[in-house]
Amino acid sequence: MTNTKKGRVFSGARPTGRQHLGNYLGAIRNYVALQDDYDCVYCVVDLHALTTLEDTDKLRGWTYEMTLDWLAAGMNPDLGTIIFVQSHVPQVTELHLLLSMATPLGWLTRLPTFKDKVRQQPDNVNYGLVGYPVLMAADIALYKADVVPVGVDQAPHLEFTREIVRRFNHHFGEVLIEPQAKHTEFTKVLGIDGEQKMSKSLDNHIEIAASPEEIEQRVMQMKTDPARKFRSDPGHPEVCNLFSLHSFFSADQVAQIEQDCRGAGIGCVQCKRLFAQNLSAHFAPFRERRAELAKDPDVVWDVLAEGARRASVIASEVISEVKDAIGLPKPR
Amino acid sequence: MTNTKKGRVFSGARPTGRQHLGNYLGAIRNYVALQDDYDCVYCVVDLHALTTLEDTDKLRGWTYEMTLDWLAAGMNPDLGTIIFVQSHVPQVTELHLLLSMATPLGWLTRLPTFKDKVRQQPDNVNYGLVGYPVLMAADIALYKADVVPVGVDQAPHLEFTREIVRRFNHHFGEVLIEPQAKHTEFTKVLGIDGEQKMSKSLDNHIEIAASPEEIEQRVMQMKTDPARKFRSDPGHPEVCNLFSLHSFFSADQVAQIEQDCRGAGIGCVQCKRLFAQNLSAHFAPFRERRAELAKDPDVVWDVLAEGARRASVIASEVISEVKDAIGLPKPR
Repeated sequence: MTNTKKGRVFSGARPTGRQHLGNYLGAIRNYVALQDDYDCVYCVVDLHALTTLEDTDKLRGWTYEMTLDWLAAGMNPDLGTIIFVQSHVPQVTELHLLLSMATPLGWLTRLPTFKDKVRQQPDNVNYGLVGYPVLMAADIALYKADVVPVGVDQAPHLEFTREIVRRFNHHFGEVLIEPQAKHTEFTKVLGIDGEQKMSKSLDNHIEIAASPEEIEQRVMQMKTDPARKFRSDPGHPEVCNLFSLHSFFSADQVAQIEQDCRGAGIGCVQCKRLFAQNLSAHFAPFRERRAELAKDPDVVWDVLAEGARRASVIASEVISEVKDAIGLPKPR
Repeated sequence: MTNTKKGRVFSGARPTGRQHLGNYLGAIRNYVALQDDYDCVYCVVDLHALTTLEDTDKLRGWTYEMTLDWLAAGMNPDLGTIIFVQSHVPQVTELHLLLSMATPLGWLTRLPTFKDKVRQQPDNVNYGLVGYPVLMAADIALYKADVVPVGVDQAPHLEFTREIVRRFNHHFGEVLIEPQAKHTEFTKVLGIDGEQKMSKSLDNHIEIAASPEEIEQRVMQMKTDPARKFRSDPGHPEVCNLFSLHSFFSADQVAQIEQDCRGAGIGCVQCKRLFAQNLSAHFAPFRERRAELAKDPDVVWDVLAEGARRASVIASEVISEVKDAIGLPKPR
């Protein structure tokens, strides 16, 4: 099989159920676009989701819903993309353990993200939480990813993976690939509260699979320019969360909207209605594909099973090389 | 298949190559004896051997030599015993990761054994080293061991496993078995220096597979009662390392030896010769069986392969139960 693509991309996302605009603008649209140039390996990282030990009973449903969104959005196994669930390819836990032997504890406990987590869940600082970056490194290294799409703020995570890989290779030979960062615009999207990052747990999100009615209902709750108290006040699009989203979903109208807002030619309610319409129209084909795919739940699970099968082929080979390089006794 | 045994025993030992008297008196003879009453699962814990990252190129050879000693000493798959290599049943790394999510970091870093390790290898405190007890717990829990043979000083390790299991079961239901300690006399054997614990790394050991000539050569170097400077001085068996070993290998002569030593009726050189003879005689059938088994190196690897196959049957079932209890998406 000839392959004219530029290399292999790996990325993973925690199973969080139905995806929202933040997931879409921050990740999914990149995932879809990367398929043109790369062999893509996209992973539902269910093991990563265990670091908080919360909501584990929802993992199955959330995996299903997220994968459904992914497929409907255009992540497509027919393009060569591998979509699978992390725990279905258990070699990652082998590599996690093996890498853990070459990862200084101090590297982990000094990470700002670890310190943040400790602040967030001081009563639940488990060994697995400390090893989060080791598991991430195992994910990337197990699939010999050449490239990992990262936004500016995730760059340190990938640098960490590169360091673990270098240290491992230093001990055991050039077995693993040091992944390169592919700097990608991972748009940060604020929630409808206009203050915090859009997130399901804050319930400030708009699902991409929402019906037009649901979209309208959520959009009408959006906080806009806080300084604009009355319809007749001129608006400040540069501080308006709604306006920043218009630039994605109302691209050809955005100049006009800006002008109308600044001139008080359009009110926030009207502006929201317009946005709700555009958003709804943008995702209309997506909703259609999603409904089609959802008719038979087996479709998603079959894609994930086939993804796991294909991922296992790569993973088995790499883990054998790794164990061999370390010198572990070979099974027969 | 009916089973009249009392339950399942699990124990593991790092692959350290040819076994010495310390290994024999401390572990192997217990392993052999337990086979009468228990279904025994004995594991060459090669992954545990990686925490120092040293001598990994020797793991294969050491696994072979240790297993050969085990088999020649009477650890016997025909009695139902499972003998296998830890890394050949990778489900243990899955359980290790899953248990790590339920193991508070503080439990691990506060362990006296961890603090000892940090003192021993301050420049090499890896994440994997911290997780040593988690991997141990995974070993025991994965095989649903009812009983783990422990000496007095290993009791805290097993207590740790029990705590992890309890915490896991608390979160996810009664999935894992809390193993019971089977208090066993794990004789501590001093090296031929009479000062430090017998150990290969200190080169103060006597291999159980040593030839009569090698045995004599090592035994003649043994330190005996330091207060006995001259042949005519009366000896003090209670402080003599050689005498303590006589009690195992010269059991029917030990009363006489004690009397002769105290009365200066026997010199240390003579006492050593006697010990060397008795030791050599004790292990004569062992050496014969070992030579027989070593004729075909496949014998050892076949035993380990069959052991891994049988261990995998148990491991697959348990890991499925565990993943199910957590709620991870099922592969199909």
